[in-house]
Amino acid sequence: MKSQTAVEATETRDEIVRSLARGERRFHQLPTELSADEAGAIRREALEEATGAALEHIGRYSLDAERAAGRNCENFIGAAQIPMGVIGPLHLHGEHIDGAVFVPLATTEAALVASTNRGCAAIREAGGATVRVEDVGMTRAPVFRTSGIEQTQAFLRWIVDHDEEIRVLAERTSRYLRLLDIRPMAYGTSVFLRFRFDTGDAMGMNMATIACDRVVTELIEPATGVACIALSGNYCVDKKPAEINFHEGRGKRVFAEVVIEGPILKRYLKTTSRDLVEAQYRKNLLGSIAAGSKGFNAHYANILAAAFLATGQDPAHVVEGSMGVTCIESRGPEAVYASVYMPAMPIGAVGGGTALATQREALALLGVVPDPERPGHAAGRLAEILGGAVLAGELSLMAAFTSHDLARAHERLGRGAPENGSGD
Amino acid sequence: MKSQTAVEATETRDEIVRSLARGERRFHQLPTELSADEAGAIRREALEEATGAALEHIGRYSLDAERAAGRNCENFIGAAQIPMGVIGPLHLHGEHIDGAVFVPLATTEAALVASTNRGCAAIREAGGATVRVEDVGMTRAPVFRTSGIEQTQAFLRWIVDHDEEIRVLAERTSRYLRLLDIRPMAYGTSVFLRFRFDTGDAMGMNMATIACDRVVTELIEPATGVACIALSGNYCVDKKPAEINFHEGRGKRVFAEVVIEGPILKRYLKTTSRDLVEAQYRKNLLGSIAAGSKGFNAHYANILAAAFLATGQDPAHVVEGSMGVTCIESRGPEAVYASVYMPAMPIGAVGGGTALATQREALALLGVVPDPERPGHAAGRLAEILGGAVLAGELSLMAAFTSHDLARAHERLGRGAPENGSGD
Amino acid sequence: MKSQTAVEATETRDEIVRSLARGERRFHQLPTELSADEAGAIRREALEEATGAALEHIGRYSLDAERAAGRNCENFIGAAQIPMGVIGPLHLHGEHIDGAVFVPLATTEAALVASTNRGCAAIREAGGATVRVEDVGMTRAPVFRTSGIEQTQAFLRWIVDHDEEIRVLAERTSRYLRLLDIRPMAYGTSVFLRFRFDTGDAMGMNMATIACDRVVTELIEPATGVACIALSGNYCVDKKPAEINFHEGRGKRVFAEVVIEGPILKRYLKTTSRDLVEAQYRKNLLGSIAAGSKGFNAHYANILAAAFLATGQDPAHVVEGSMGVTCIESRGPEAVYASVYMPAMPIGAVGGGTALATQREALALLGVVPDPERPGHAAGRLAEILGGAVLAGELSLMAAFTSHDLARAHERLGRGAPENGSGD
Amino acid sequence: MKSQTAVEATETRDEIVRSLARGERRFHQLPTELSADEAGAIRREALEEATGAALEHIGRYSLDAERAAGRNCENFIGAAQIPMGVIGPLHLHGEHIDGAVFVPLATTEAALVASTNRGCAAIREAGGATVRVEDVGMTRAPVFRTSGIEQTQAFLRWIVDHDEEIRVLAERTSRYLRLLDIRPMAYGTSVFLRFRFDTGDAMGMNMATIACDRVVTELIEPATGVACIALSGNYCVDKKPAEINFHEGRGKRVFAEVVIEGPILKRYLKTTSRDLVEAQYRKNLLGSIAAGSKGFNAHYANILAAAFLATGQDPAHVVEGSMGVTCIESRGPEAVYASVYMPAMPIGAVGGGTALATQREALALLGVVPDPERPGHAAGRLAEILGGAVLAGELSLMAAFTSHDLARAHERLGRGAPENGSGD
Repeated sequence: MKSQTAVEATETRDEIVRSLARGERRFHQLPTELSADEAGAIRREALEEATGAALEHIGRYSLDAERAAGRNCENFIGAAQIPMGVIGPLHLHGEHIDGAVFVPLATTEAALVASTNRGCAAIREAGGATVRVEDVGMTRAPVFRTSGIEQTQAFLRWIVDHDEEIRVLAERTSRYLRLLDIRPMAYGTSVFLRFRFDTGDAMGMNMATIACDRVVTELIEPATGVACIALSGNYCVDKKPAEINFHEGRGKRVFAEVVIEGPILKRYLKTTSRDLVEAQYRKNLLGSIAAGSKGFNAHYANILAAAFLATGQDPAHVVEGSMGVTCIESRGPEAVYASVYMPAMPIGAVGGGTALATQREALALLGVVPDPERPGHAAGRLAEILGGAVLAGELSLMAAFTSHDLARAHERLGRGAPENGSGD
Repeated sequence: MKSQTAVEATETRDEIVRSLARGERRFHQLPTELSADEAGAIRREALEEATGAALEHIGRYSLDAERAAGRNCENFIGAAQIPMGVIGPLHLHGEHIDGAVFVPLATTEAALVASTNRGCAAIREAGGATVRVEDVGMTRAPVFRTSGIEQTQAFLRWIVDHDEEIRVLAERTSRYLRLLDIRPMAYGTSVFLRFRFDTGDAMGMNMATIACDRVVTELIEPATGVACIALSGNYCVDKKPAEINFHEGRGKRVFAEVVIEGPILKRYLKTTSRDLVEAQYRKNLLGSIAAGSKGFNAHYANILAAAFLATGQDPAHVVEGSMGVTCIESRGPEAVYASVYMPAMPIGAVGGGTALATQREALALLGVVPDPERPGHAAGRLAEILGGAVLAGELSLMAAFTSHDLARAHERLGRGAPENGSGD
Repeated sequence: MKSQTAVEATETRDEIVRSLARGERRFHQLPTELSADEAGAIRREALEEATGAALEHIGRYSLDAERAAGRNCENFIGAAQIPMGVIGPLHLHGEHIDGAVFVPLATTEAALVASTNRGCAAIREAGGATVRVEDVGMTRAPVFRTSGIEQTQAFLRWIVDHDEEIRVLAERTSRYLRLLDIRPMAYGTSVFLRFRFDTGDAMGMNMATIACDRVVTELIEPATGVACIALSGNYCVDKKPAEINFHEGRGKRVFAEVVIEGPILKRYLKTTSRDLVEAQYRKNLLGSIAAGSKGFNAHYANILAAAFLATGQDPAHVVEGSMGVTCIESRGPEAVYASVYMPAMPIGAVGGGTALATQREALALLGVVPDPERPGHAAGRLAEILGGAVLAGELSLMAAFTSHDLARAHERLGRGAPENGSGD
Repeated sequence: MKSQTAVEATETRDEIVRSLARGERRFHQLPTELSADEAGAIRREALEEATGAALEHIGRYSLDAERAAGRNCENFIGAAQIPMGVIGPLHLHGEHIDGAVFVPLATTEAALVASTNRGCAAIREAGGATVRVEDVGMTRAPVFRTSGIEQTQAFLRWIVDHDEEIRVLAERTSRYLRLLDIRPMAYGTSVFLRFRFDTGDAMGMNMATIACDRVVTELIEPATGVACIALSGNYCVDKKPAEINFHEGRGKRVFAEVVIEGPILKRYLKTTSRDLVEAQYRKNLLGSIAAGSKGFNAHYANILAAAFLATGQDPAHVVEGSMGVTCIESRGPEAVYASVYMPAMPIGAVGGGTALATQREALALLGVVPDPERPGHAAGRLAEILGGAVLAGELSLMAAFTSHDLARAHERLGRGAPENGSGD
């Protein structure tokens, strides 16, 4: 499909634009000598000519187009601008952070930033939230075809017997990658091997894929004669809601909790222990049960989506992040214990969109800076911060329900008044 | 929590910055006379002072800060820039579109745009994809507390008996909103009423919330004496993976399909019918079954996340969008029938982030322009286009698995070569 | 496969036994003139000869072998004896029962009868339980193959346009059957039509199957040209845990509840409101969430299995019956509100095993006797009773957990002492 | 609640009957000197007097009432008789069986025995089925309450540090029990410890409960100060459909498969490879996906329920057994590969109802006889046989769908003609 050679050196810019606009040339078929900025401009011009749409703002960006076009986004035409706000200070006590941070959120959902910020205030007054992260690791699960039970048994025995060879070969693909274990699943003539890797500060999906490819094509297939049908067999499982991730975890498993006294609930969240506990019971537990949901929470996805965009994470990973369980329990007559639990949050401090201009700044704002001496620490810090931010978001929205503020906040949006309360 | 009045008129800009940086003032507590641009600059300066991070690029944006700060994102500090690419032409035959479009995708995931673009080429050669959308409507489900079975029965009878009054009151909150039906769910002392609304070209979550608030607080609670505990009882269910949405649908229910002959499979997708069908069987069906996933597909979430960001949709709605079923079946000796099915895609052509600078341009590029004469048509067009784009993405990634291209594509990313194949 | 004609009239009993034992003849290939009792005896003798096992007790039964062999169980060899106990009086207030009943339970699980009986005592002291049943109806969902979106749309329109013809034809297959509605589900090239029927006092699975067969083969297939691939397309869905049944219900949807004061909790259940509510929260809610279970309860399946066996229900329907949600909430300082909710309980008062000797007696004991004047009433009564019995079982077992009685009860079993507490 | 002492020695039988019938005495309050047979007779008489029902057949049993009343069923009144038939010979190649067996099935569902028997014939002609069992072990998961993240971390560390002490103490409760591992799950203030035990030939639920009780009350609670809230925290999870069991397995994980050539399909199952594969695809895969079911099969529950009843298993365990995946794939132009997979089948060769009269005979018929030299072998044999029987049932019913035999079989039932085809 590459046909840059078909582009005549003598071709004018206008001719290129016209051929793109007419569909005579595909958008990746531009002269290789064009810079990413120029190629983007030509594509925008062609699109404008073809559709009549004006693409002025898409062409206004300050990111490094060369890098973005090469590493993040082919057929580059510019950038989407997503408004960014900030919440905090968010006071956290974790293993990778102990103190306060300001958290950037990129969102178009009115009230989300204001509401989550309100949660931060309540957490601060309560002395900060406790946060923890467990680095489960990144997974990739190729699927293989056998002839049936007996070959499957032999194949799985081979895998167990050669786990050291597999590990060595896998880890040769990156010095940041360690193979943690291989979880098999087999039925009929299909065998899934769920490889789990420690990938340091990287989210690690690509590292895991490359490592799996290596061990599958260079070791497992040749040695066993068993064919790999797809390098991802959906038992991984990436960017789809799935029980396996809920149970086994994937990426980071994140915990956050806080105890809030009655007066703080009243002053900062306009609510009471009794109301919060009941809303939690009927909405996050019974309602999610009724809906058959894996999200026993109010709106993890909102906070994660906004923080993921700001910090260069993959927004499709909000799918996994939306799963999890909020708990709100009474403590004594007036206080509450509130916690969030996210079993599968795939995030990284390097790779993906983390090196892009605004995203790198957002990570710096969070103090999320990889340190070669402490691999995984930066990603752990990011995970703990996200846990705290999600807790702030849960507290504020749950409180909004109890004071019937949700709809009213949304009604005032058009007038530009920042409000407490957000949609789930 | 609003205390703008506490800000002294004589306060200098530096004093404000300093007080923010020191945490003596919260980020929404700025003088109201400041423009959004100025307020954003002050906040950035304060964050830089507090953290040492440079926030240069976040401050470079061309969107309308006043509008964004008022309607999309409180505590505004600037914008995240997400690289945008384009795929197409994508040839589609639907009820809201019949022809070719170019689809903008905002993403940081290498290979996604190139891979999906390859799928577009195959679809074009196959004569285009058939697409359809069913407008299920937007839902919101308040949860109520009763004393038990008898009050629940009486309450539900009251709802049935007063559905017309409820409808009239709900529809008074917006001329674009129509109440379609109310689905009850009750057990123990909890009753959920899942209101379903037609919301025209809007995604409609806020409209639905406002309408529910009105009927609950002005009609249902006063008349029945039954208290609403939370306006969203998670039986809606928003931004969480859930069976109810898989079964009942939510937002748009989208279908797309194409039949591709053997020579086109070979030339454009480097694959065969036999290999595609087997990968589909072992990965999308058996693998997702093994994983307990509701996503019987390769990577709907990737394409939706990228298209949602480009067009101003709520990225947290990728959670629902990731659910669904891909089918790939052999047709005769060499061809395949391929389809995608997304039961719950909440999207809109107005509201949310659709009015922002780059997003509005992206929608214009797609020809998604609300027409008062045909309410819902623009959103329907967007849904059908997304269905086609997702189909293109599925075909290309599934083909990449069969030709073992996935990992190799990712390995070449660092060198900036656009590639076919993307991660799921 | 029938080859009775191959059996020589002059063949002796011994010859038949020997040929069966040697595998030269299959077990259904016996002379047709043999009575069911004789055929059973011959089969037992052959099995004894072939395996050396003594089948003495299996041959001791008082049921009507002719009927059982013809209507319930081919290759008849006798009967399994399942010990039967009784609980009660169970005091219930429903729409089909208002008073006390004694409930027979056939089980081999020690402590189950004693424990559930303890729950009955607590319910009696509390003034009886409120019970309700909603007759959802029996479902059957054939699956059809179309060529894709357009034929699916046309097919579904045809179904809507011909619903009256379909109804008339379906109802012609039984005077006890009424077609309630048809719920379609379609994706790819598959269409599922979930027919829902009122089947009076019968569980109705066979009636539903026969009715579907008729309308599919005589009306839908000929008129539309769309082929039915399987009369049951698993969207019904029978005897498998499934979300569709949890959401839509199937058979009977059953509710039961009771409020129990502190002194009764203490005296009859050795527990307190506080302990019960906490066990409910951590076990039935959080534990089932952690397990990804659709059974938010302690052990519905135990009570249902025992009652189903005693009353001639299909024990495989315990699968659906095990789904559901128990609620236990505090009421004032010392009392609890407890409820059970079973969305999908397929049961009947006629058909299946209900006419067998011991089962008919058990139904008579419950006062479950079909009345032609009130079709569905007997099945409704049975459902309400089962709801009450399940509630009794939940209360007692949950209480046993709080008083740490569970394991101790099981330890004493070997000594034959009836105990409170049962396993879930 | 025990008040046998309240029974006057001079009390006549009639007086006892009358007091029971009037509800003045509870059914377990009988003089201890009464034999189980006498007590059962008295209870039946009282029930007859109270309700007018005749309980003649319930009183006709040959099982050992003393044993049944003491170990299986309190408030004993007699027995339910469930018709029993036989299928086979079923030819199997496993690790615990290699040869042919006859399998007793106790059922009231017409056509089930005949249909499954047809599957046995096809398997026999195909050379027998390959069967395997993996002994996952029995699980029990107490739930504990902590004060939050930090105590949870300390508690889990304690468990890891003391696993040897825990193991020793647990195994002291039974010489047949071995602790395999402990899988923790924690969020909020709840911690679940899923103990997994090898329980030899026993199903083991009670053994697991007793062992957990011992280690919890004698070791874990005293040493950690963390309270156990319920000995079963539903993360076990027993007799409820649950993802954890699908993923992790519970009891036995069972596999069975067979390859059947075209002529055998045609002669014995009246079907073709093509039709079977399509029915499998649309029903067992797409239909179960549509239904949100964990049973990707036709009717595992039917065969298991019937075999469980015949052999003294707990029928409530059909809930777990109903989960699993059938595969049917084409092999060459005319043959099929068919397999069944059941991840969680809790069964035993000792304990429960296995010692009852008819059940013991049924086990003997299967050659399932515990051998102290080979603990677990008898249970493994039973599991492999059940796997083969389920495979036979799947093949026959799936074939019946393709030849549209299902409904017709049920229509002929009333006339007592054994038929192929059964309901799912």
